[in-house]
Amino acid sequence: MQLTQFSDYALRTLIYLGVREGDLATIEEIAASYGISESHLTKVVHKLGRLGIIDTVRGRGGGMRLNRRPADINIGATVRQMEGNLTIVECFDIEHNTCPIAPVCGLTSVLAEALEAFMAVLDRYTLADMMKERRNLAGLLSISIEDDARRRPAIRS
Amino acid sequence: MQLTQFSDYALRTLIYLGVREGDLATIEEIAASYGISESHLTKVVHKLGRLGIIDTVRGRGGGMRLNRRPADINIGATVRQMEGNLTIVECFDIEHNTCPIAPVCGLTSVLAEALEAFMAVLDRYTLADMMKERRNLAGLLSISIEDDARRRPAIRS
Repeated sequence: MQLTQFSDYALRTLIYLGVREGDLATIEEIAASYGISESHLTKVVHKLGRLGIIDTVRGRGGGMRLNRRPADINIGATVRQMEGNLTIVECFDIEHNTCPIAPVCGLTSVLAEALEAFMAVLDRYTLADMMKERRNLAGLLSISIEDDARRRPAIRS
Repeated sequence: MQLTQFSDYALRTLIYLGVREGDLATIEEIAASYGISESHLTKVVHKLGRLGIIDTVRGRGGGMRLNRRPADINIGATVRQMEGNLTIVECFDIEHNTCPIAPVCGLTSVLAEALEAFMAVLDRYTLADMMKERRNLAGLLSISIEDDARRRPAIRS
């Protein structure tokens, strides 16, 4: 059982952009922070853009940012949109299936039921739930974020 | 979301052997029936043997067969045993993880919960449920099975 690399990288990108809040981020810096391939990430970012989940600013000093608040980005919906068809085994993709027993195999409906249960859990969470430890995430991703305590006067002083 | 090829091929092998009932089958014929790689299947069969799910007879005329009744082979248990650790994303395998945010990432527990829900569905089924259409499965796998009607006298004649 594996989440595809495509969904995995999409969720990592969204967490990164969530931590950055409105600041623009580039593919290069996200790939470097996670130590992952830029070319794989480029395809993921392209799709996130086409789906309207992120917003891209072209040119020098450009980059990407979230197009919605983290609380409005549902994890289940994102995985479904990124994957298109959830091909848990090859017979879920009728066009490319080579397994001869697909028409009468009892496993298909059981895997469909299990996949449904899996996605139902993801449907209950949003990107905001993924980044409750924003400050620690920023540290591990080498993102410098403004210190909230410095931005507003401390109440007790 | 994908079931690993390892689990996929294991389940296909068990369905094949279930259709064959007690008859011995070879890796060559299973690989040919499904149109899949013999070398991949060899590793799968080796593990199924080590787990005691199948029984192997060596030498000329040898092969493998199920070691238990299909109703006693649980699908969830089989997938868990075949996969060892269910590495849905790389951070589930601490030894090989490269993702820097693993210690504070909110996604890990959500994916663990979703995986649990997935496996809970598989735990409710056995190999017997997979092969309710045994006769049709045999046809698609080019397995000739004895006609049950011929083996015992028909009640009405």
